[in-house]
Amino acid sequence: MTYAMIGTWRMAYEGLCKGIDLLKDSGTSADAVETSIKEVEDYPFFKSVGYGGLPNQNGLVEMDSAFMNGDTFAVGAVMGISDVKNPISVARSLSHDHFNSVLVGNGATEYATQNGFERKNMLTERAQKIWRKRKREIEEKNLSPYDGHDTVGMVSLDQSGSISVGTSTSGLFMKKPGRTGDSALVGDGFYADSEIGGAAATGLGEDIMKGCLCYEIVRLMGTGLSPQDACDKAVYPFVKKLKERYGKIGEFSLVALNKEGQWGVATNVEFTFAVGTEDSKPAIYIAFPGENDTTKIDPITQEWLDAYSKRIKAPID
Amino acid sequence: MTYAMIGTWRMAYEGLCKGIDLLKDSGTSADAVETSIKEVEDYPFFKSVGYGGLPNQNGLVEMDSAFMNGDTFAVGAVMGISDVKNPISVARSLSHDHFNSVLVGNGATEYATQNGFERKNMLTERAQKIWRKRKREIEEKNLSPYDGHDTVGMVSLDQSGSISVGTSTSGLFMKKPGRTGDSALVGDGFYADSEIGGAAATGLGEDIMKGCLCYEIVRLMGTGLSPQDACDKAVYPFVKKLKERYGKIGEFSLVALNKEGQWGVATNVEFTFAVGTEDSKPAIYIAFPGENDTTKIDPITQEWLDAYSKRIKAPID
Repeated sequence: MTYAMIGTWRMAYEGLCKGIDLLKDSGTSADAVETSIKEVEDYPFFKSVGYGGLPNQNGLVEMDSAFMNGDTFAVGAVMGISDVKNPISVARSLSHDHFNSVLVGNGATEYATQNGFERKNMLTERAQKIWRKRKREIEEKNLSPYDGHDTVGMVSLDQSGSISVGTSTSGLFMKKPGRTGDSALVGDGFYADSEIGGAAATGLGEDIMKGCLCYEIVRLMGTGLSPQDACDKAVYPFVKKLKERYGKIGEFSLVALNKEGQWGVATNVEFTFAVGTEDSKPAIYIAFPGENDTTKIDPITQEWLDAYSKRIKAPID
Repeated sequence: MTYAMIGTWRMAYEGLCKGIDLLKDSGTSADAVETSIKEVEDYPFFKSVGYGGLPNQNGLVEMDSAFMNGDTFAVGAVMGISDVKNPISVARSLSHDHFNSVLVGNGATEYATQNGFERKNMLTERAQKIWRKRKREIEEKNLSPYDGHDTVGMVSLDQSGSISVGTSTSGLFMKKPGRTGDSALVGDGFYADSEIGGAAATGLGEDIMKGCLCYEIVRLMGTGLSPQDACDKAVYPFVKKLKERYGKIGEFSLVALNKEGQWGVATNVEFTFAVGTEDSKPAIYIAFPGENDTTKIDPITQEWLDAYSKRIKAPID
C-alpha cells in the first residue's frame, strides 16, 4: 500500500514534510494530519491559523478546527475556541467520543482546559499590529473589513489504507465574535471515507458551506472519478450556480486525495498547495482556474517563494 | 404552482398548520418556516426545542438553529445561543448577511441582543425538575446521561416555487456545555435547493453529521428520485455502513419535500411527523423502518396522540 498527503496553501509545506516522514515510517494518517497541522498552528508568521492568527473585530483570536477519521467517519470539531495552543489536537481528541464531539465557544475552551491541552495566548504582537492597522484603514478608506481567510486543511493516506482529514483556522479576519465558517462543518470544510478518499476546503466559509463541496468531491471520487476530475466537476459548476443564484461569490479552493494516493485541486483564485506521495517528494504547487472547468497547476517558482517569505515577515507600519 | 410543508415530530403540527395557512394565502416559504418553528419554540411542553427545552449538564439551555433559502443557498445559523426567545428568527436574520452568517456561543447571543431579538430565560420550572430528576437517576442507576435529542425541522414550498428549510433544538439532553449537533450544520441537519427540494434531520447529531444526509437526499431528488425514494436510498444504506464502520449508531430520522410538493421520510426508529399540501390538509403520521430499506408510514391514532399529550404534561416527581 502507498501513502500520500496534500495540504492547502504554501503554509502547509513544512508540516506536510513532517507528516510524510511519519507516513513513510508506517505512521498513521491521523498522526500525520495532527502533526502537520500543529506545525502550521505553531508557526507565528502564518496569520490565519493558530499562534499569530489574526483576531476578530474585538481583538480576540477565536479558532475553528476539525478532525475526521475516514475509517469510522468519527468527527471531532471545535468552533470559536480561544487561548488553546493546538485546536487540531482538541478536535482529534473529541473525535474519540460518541457524544459531545463538536463543541463551540466557551464550552470548547473549557473542555480543552479541563483535559490538559496547553493553554496559550494566541495573539502575537505582530497580529495585534496588523489588526490595529487594518482597523485604521477600514475607517479611513471605508473598506469592507472582511479580507483574508485561509484555512490549513490536510488530507492524508497511510500505508494501511486509512484516510484522515483535518482543518484549522483563525477564520475570517475582523470577523464578528463567534463567527464560524465551513472549516468545522462536516461535508462543507472537510470529509473523509477511507474506502474512497478525502477532501478539505479553504476560502470564504460562508460560501463554501452553501455547496457541501467536500462531501460532493468524495462522493464523486466514489463513482470512479479521479481526484482532479472530482474537484473540477464539484467546484466549477457550483461556482457558476452560486453566482447565478446568490449574485456574488467569495474565493474558494479545494484539495482532494484518493485511496490510491492520487490527488487533485480546484480553485476560483490563485491558490498554492503542498503535496507529497510515495513517488514524489513534498513540493509546493500553484493552481489557477483553467479553461472549460479545469484547473491549471504549475510548480511554484523560487521567485514566488522568496516574495512570500518576505511578505509574511515584512515590518508592519 | 402548489404549496406544501413537512415538519419533524408530532410537535411540528400546530406550527405547521400556521405555516400552511400562510402558504395557502400566497405567503413565502421563509415566513412559513419561521412562523411554524417559532410556534414550536414558544410552546413550553416541548422539551427539546426553545422555551421549556432541557438544559445542558450545567443547567443552562443552549440552543442551535439554522435557516436556509433554497433560491439563493443563503444560510444563517446559531449554535450554543442562550436566553433568546426565538433562535430561528436570529438564524433567518443572519441568512441575509454575506459575512458572519453563522455565529456560535456568546457571539451568537450578543448578536441577538444587539439586534433587538427578544431575550428570555428559556429554562422553565418543569425543565429544571426534569433535569434534577435525571441527574439523580444517572447517579443512582449509573446510566448514560445522553437520552433525548429531538430537533424540529421544517421544509416548505410556496406558490412561487421557493423552498426554505429551518431547524431549532435545545440539543442533546445533559450535553456538555458548548456541544452542538447536526442541526446548524449545512448539508448535515438541513439543505434546500428550490430547483429540487429540501430536507431536514433529527436524532443523534453526532451520527447524522457523519453522512451529510440532507445534502445527499436533495442531491438524489435532483437525479429524479421521489422524496420517499431519495430518503430511503440516502438513509438506510448509510445506517448499515455506519454500523459496520463505526460499530454503533444513534437514532435518526429525515424528512424531505420536493418542488412538486411531494414528500418522503426515512428513519431507523419510531418517528412521528406532520405534513400538509395543497391537496391534503395538515396531518400527523407515524413512520417506522420497513423491510428492504423502505419506510412504513401510518396515520397517527387518537390513542397515540392522547398518550403523548398526557406524557408531555405529566407531573415530574
